[in-house]
Amino acid sequence: MFSLQRNLNQLRKLSNQSRSKSYIVNLDNINQNVKRIEYAVRGPLVIRAGEIEKELKAGTSNKSFSEVIRANIGDCHATGQKPLTYFRQVIACCTDTSLLDSPKYPNDVKEKVKLLLSYCGGNSVGAYSDSAGIEIARQHCAEYIAERDGIPSNWQDIVLTTGASEGVRAVLALINSSSTDDKPSGVLIPIPQYPLYTATIAEYAMHPIKYYLDEENEWQLNIKELKRALDNDRSLCKPKAIVIINPGNPTGSVLSKENIKEIIKFAKEEGLMIIADEVYQHNIYKEGAAFHSFKKVMHEMGLEIELASLMSSSKGYMGECGLRGGYCEFINLQPEVKALFLKMLSARLCCSILGQIAMDCVVSPPKPGDQSYDLFASEKNAILESLKAKAKLAAETFNSIPNMKSNPVAGAMYAFPQIILPEKAIKEARDKNMEPDFFYAKNLLEKTGICIVPGSGFGQIPGTYHFRTTILPQLGELRKMMDRLKVFHLQFLEDYK
Amino acid sequence: MFSLQRNLNQLRKLSNQSRSKSYIVNLDNINQNVKRIEYAVRGPLVIRAGEIEKELKAGTSNKSFSEVIRANIGDCHATGQKPLTYFRQVIACCTDTSLLDSPKYPNDVKEKVKLLLSYCGGNSVGAYSDSAGIEIARQHCAEYIAERDGIPSNWQDIVLTTGASEGVRAVLALINSSSTDDKPSGVLIPIPQYPLYTATIAEYAMHPIKYYLDEENEWQLNIKELKRALDNDRSLCKPKAIVIINPGNPTGSVLSKENIKEIIKFAKEEGLMIIADEVYQHNIYKEGAAFHSFKKVMHEMGLEIELASLMSSSKGYMGECGLRGGYCEFINLQPEVKALFLKMLSARLCCSILGQIAMDCVVSPPKPGDQSYDLFASEKNAILESLKAKAKLAAETFNSIPNMKSNPVAGAMYAFPQIILPEKAIKEARDKNMEPDFFYAKNLLEKTGICIVPGSGFGQIPGTYHFRTTILPQLGELRKMMDRLKVFHLQFLEDYK
Repeated sequence: MFSLQRNLNQLRKLSNQSRSKSYIVNLDNINQNVKRIEYAVRGPLVIRAGEIEKELKAGTSNKSFSEVIRANIGDCHATGQKPLTYFRQVIACCTDTSLLDSPKYPNDVKEKVKLLLSYCGGNSVGAYSDSAGIEIARQHCAEYIAERDGIPSNWQDIVLTTGASEGVRAVLALINSSSTDDKPSGVLIPIPQYPLYTATIAEYAMHPIKYYLDEENEWQLNIKELKRALDNDRSLCKPKAIVIINPGNPTGSVLSKENIKEIIKFAKEEGLMIIADEVYQHNIYKEGAAFHSFKKVMHEMGLEIELASLMSSSKGYMGECGLRGGYCEFINLQPEVKALFLKMLSARLCCSILGQIAMDCVVSPPKPGDQSYDLFASEKNAILESLKAKAKLAAETFNSIPNMKSNPVAGAMYAFPQIILPEKAIKEARDKNMEPDFFYAKNLLEKTGICIVPGSGFGQIPGTYHFRTTILPQLGELRKMMDRLKVFHLQFLEDYK
Repeated sequence: MFSLQRNLNQLRKLSNQSRSKSYIVNLDNINQNVKRIEYAVRGPLVIRAGEIEKELKAGTSNKSFSEVIRANIGDCHATGQKPLTYFRQVIACCTDTSLLDSPKYPNDVKEKVKLLLSYCGGNSVGAYSDSAGIEIARQHCAEYIAERDGIPSNWQDIVLTTGASEGVRAVLALINSSSTDDKPSGVLIPIPQYPLYTATIAEYAMHPIKYYLDEENEWQLNIKELKRALDNDRSLCKPKAIVIINPGNPTGSVLSKENIKEIIKFAKEEGLMIIADEVYQHNIYKEGAAFHSFKKVMHEMGLEIELASLMSSSKGYMGECGLRGGYCEFINLQPEVKALFLKMLSARLCCSILGQIAMDCVVSPPKPGDQSYDLFASEKNAILESLKAKAKLAAETFNSIPNMKSNPVAGAMYAFPQIILPEKAIKEARDKNMEPDFFYAKNLLEKTGICIVPGSGFGQIPGTYHFRTTILPQLGELRKMMDRLKVFHLQFLEDYK
């Protein structure tokens, strides 16, 4: 893979520089797994984008564009989305409690603040919470899930986490017996996937069992392919779990209920726990599509498999990435394993109380009749409507361009179009020791300022090329980006025909 | 160890309950390292304290006391310490930027908020930062360190972390090559120690090389003892690093400059990197004691050893534990190892922006002449003065009690007195399969409501018994606690004489 090669080259260059010195901690004696971590969403193209931005700012750039459009990461506020007033008032008021006396703040905000603080040590967000999180926030999560699914949720099955990422990492850490087994622990992950999974699996010396998503079928999971992947790697690892990202990152897919049923059946037959990354559950755009939680579908099937469902305050309509709120509902767990999971978390103290409060706002927002409700509802709807329009715009644009095709952006915040690259471009990329889609993305960045992530950073069927773009730039900006991208693409085809 | 035994007993009980069901994820196939994690600061006594609190609240308790005093954890605000106005105004205003128009907020607060937000994506604390943190906050950390030590600090050597804990975990993860070496990676840790270290070392399948702190010498490090510990375990592991906690947790010690020099010399000779847990650097109480950073002393010695220094916004005078701010300065690192460290962090996205801002406030507080300065200085000084008085009170009380002796509480937030337990009490404890100091602490909790942590949770020389108490309860409360503890202790001696 190009980026790995590039990293190794860079490392060698650095090595030569530092060879004269002897280091206690060095490339040969550090954690060797760290070398295998890849995280394209923040990879070399993003670093290059930052450099270009600095050049543009300093006036030292000779680029024909005046700004970089960062469509590489699902970072809503960074691309101009405004935070919801309600979230910010609750968090500000929890932080500076003298604001409880401010006439500016609505009563329901103040009531929520008082309730939350009554569950904090010393009524302060500066106190640690239980490792699993503030009790009332866990209860609110359970109420939200119960209402979403129409089946009970036990607040003691919920732990608040630092974003969904740390939830995923904790669950993987729990089931990873690589250090004592004769084989590494295996985890089925989708390809393309959000690189948190490959990165964490590499860091933990686990084994990724890669199953391809079915691009011809709107990126649903194909059970035959799951079986193929598992059979292929069974001798290399001890299979433990299957990860499903729904709605999909980077694919923008939304799984049908039928597909989810098949997956659960497969997990049951193969003895795999289910890790359901459901952070985009509020982001559904396609007509007729709906979010079905794995928990609910499993319940309908009358099954009880170990299931961890991850949620976040970073996505949805709120997009509060920087606050690092998240929760994990972990059900059907053996009681003694649950006790150990909580003990493992206890050594990490607790996650940010203000992040926990952000998560609480997501699961327990204003209700009709509350003073904040109208503003909250209008802000929320405006963002979701805008995302819906942008999802449509992105897919339609990509499908209007020769040598490019995209599934509908049914959910999440991304399009993942396939690009048919000319042979000449592929050859030039290979000559430069680059993945062809990285070569394409690098050209796009240098010529238009648009920063996307090549499909090779997420994985794809060999010989196919893709890229991921977020649909987050504001509508006018996204239109401009689509226009620029189209012009670039046509020229690229022309140049390499 | 009792708590381990108790855990295993509990687990067996749970096992019997759940034996009828078959679980995919079970005690035999999960991460076996997790079973070895112990975290006494949040252990069984703390759970029992919570139960008693609930009984007291519900009026179903038959206790002779009316409240539980939680002296088990360094959780400042939970024991009544008030947050500093400046911190809370900056964070609230960063969160709800409409407060920039409020006449209530001082100008220097508003200036800081504007500066910080100008470094945030979309001017929002809801955007991700670089994995290493917001650039301006890293710069402020470097300026703080440079001023503290009188030697330069490079902001690119600094990463912001989720409290100091996640910094420690990241550094240990980086140097841990247990999964590919023939022996586990060894880390020298003090005994007694803050259990984050043993817990993380257990989780990561590393090897703890335990060195005893010198109680007879105010808990300084004894180099002969370091050598003994290292020689003893050298064949069992690959020694990688030495952890020093200064000021000390749980010991309340402050290391002399001479002692730090000896330690650095030892690390140099033995080829160990240094992990300096310096989160209590603002908490110095003893006349004549001073905080000397490992970085500064190493610089004075003309040495350049890999050094990670950890700092936090949770301790000091601010005590903002729940905000989870922290930084790690990692110096003298081989450039390619540093690049890998940053790549490893990148897969974790970033830590809480509001936690980063809390850390920024610690390292870049108001200056004389700023509108906030007087209030800031008076709040800060009042807290540090109060801690100083409480440090004195605690040590004096313990030294006035028969069969108890304490070193001066020179720094940090804890006293760690030794208790001489009567033989009869030790026997009864052993009969009940408890550590004797756990037995003592449990009795104390049940009879007085005072929740402390037995020395066995931190480690101690076999045959000696201790407990850790924080000095955080407010002065009146601490006096009451000391009185109750004294009465209990005398009665305990009487009962078991």
